[in-house]
Amino acid sequence: MPDTAERIVIPAREGRSLHVPAGRSFRVTDREGGQVGDLFAFNAEDVSEYASAEHTRAFVDRLFPRIGEPFVTNRRRPILEFERDESPGHHDMLCAACDPERFWGLGVEGWHASCEENLRKAMGELGHEDIEVPQPINLFMNIPVAPDGSLGWEPAETKPGDGATLRAVLDCIVVVSACPQDIVPINGCNPTSLEIELLAPN
Amino acid sequence: MPDTAERIVIPAREGRSLHVPAGRSFRVTDREGGQVGDLFAFNAEDVSEYASAEHTRAFVDRLFPRIGEPFVTNRRRPILEFERDESPGHHDMLCAACDPERFWGLGVEGWHASCEENLRKAMGELGHEDIEVPQPINLFMNIPVAPDGSLGWEPAETKPGDGATLRAVLDCIVVVSACPQDIVPINGCNPTSLEIELLAPN
Repeated sequence: MPDTAERIVIPAREGRSLHVPAGRSFRVTDREGGQVGDLFAFNAEDVSEYASAEHTRAFVDRLFPRIGEPFVTNRRRPILEFERDESPGHHDMLCAACDPERFWGLGVEGWHASCEENLRKAMGELGHEDIEVPQPINLFMNIPVAPDGSLGWEPAETKPGDGATLRAVLDCIVVVSACPQDIVPINGCNPTSLEIELLAPN
Repeated sequence: MPDTAERIVIPAREGRSLHVPAGRSFRVTDREGGQVGDLFAFNAEDVSEYASAEHTRAFVDRLFPRIGEPFVTNRRRPILEFERDESPGHHDMLCAACDPERFWGLGVEGWHASCEENLRKAMGELGHEDIEVPQPINLFMNIPVAPDGSLGWEPAETKPGDGATLRAVLDCIVVVSACPQDIVPINGCNPTSLEIELLAPN
């Protein structure tokens, strides 16, 4: 396992950004288990280019990512590659990030933390106030697809310390949100923290 | 069948827009058969709000649309409802619109018509030069999903005159592109025309 060059704890319900130079790898770790991480990646030189689930599905001809395969941008260029999976292997590429409207629809009144707000805040702190909100890569999120196309919303099966390692193909800004969803049971109704580590060069 | 109030032919490989007032229905017709239509819908009062596949999947808990169900926006509000299906029933909600980069990746040199360019042109003619490019609702597009999550790219099974009818829940700008894809066989490698009709009020 490569040494860690930089390590950031992402508190429960919050988001953090990390600059990942092209060629470098990073690991997202589920510290306490059962927690989804919404992952976004933007081209550091032009944030209007970002990892896009709908372009990635058409590129790899699959619903969900697989080791060794790329995630491509809305300009169909590889931006990340899925390098190593030390988790039960469920990662969703079908569902939008949670947002205030999602929680209102679930009956929440008033403010509720959300992955969209976490993304906007993390990008805003870097001076990128006005971004498109891409569909995230939802690490550890367990959305089974039935033969009739219906979707389940199952608790993440990760154990403490499980993680996923990705390599940056382009110089990129990565944002990870420790998903605050506590009504739909994807986080076992108990959102917890994550960690993101920039790994030392091989 | 309601009378037609407005009828627009969409030539092969081109796109057209239609303003659909809230509560009115429109029908997209495959005139010659075997043709995919990329459908986009924007809130006419604020085009930063648009029909979103990733929000719709999470709203209806399904990969693909079904009669009577809504398509929701990136703000999780119903914008369209799927009213009537007079087609074999395949409609994709997984794949990005084709774009120049898609065709370069397939080996095309130089310009090739694309749904993304058709969308930008149609919206530009209405004064909306700077839009987000949503993932379309791909009417008649036959993308089977295998149990392992892999996607097929099969020819559209529509016969001449088949169509899909949708009702506008919000006042919206609808854009339909007669998909110019002629390499991957979704249009039988022979792109043809479509038609969009604004139906008279019931």
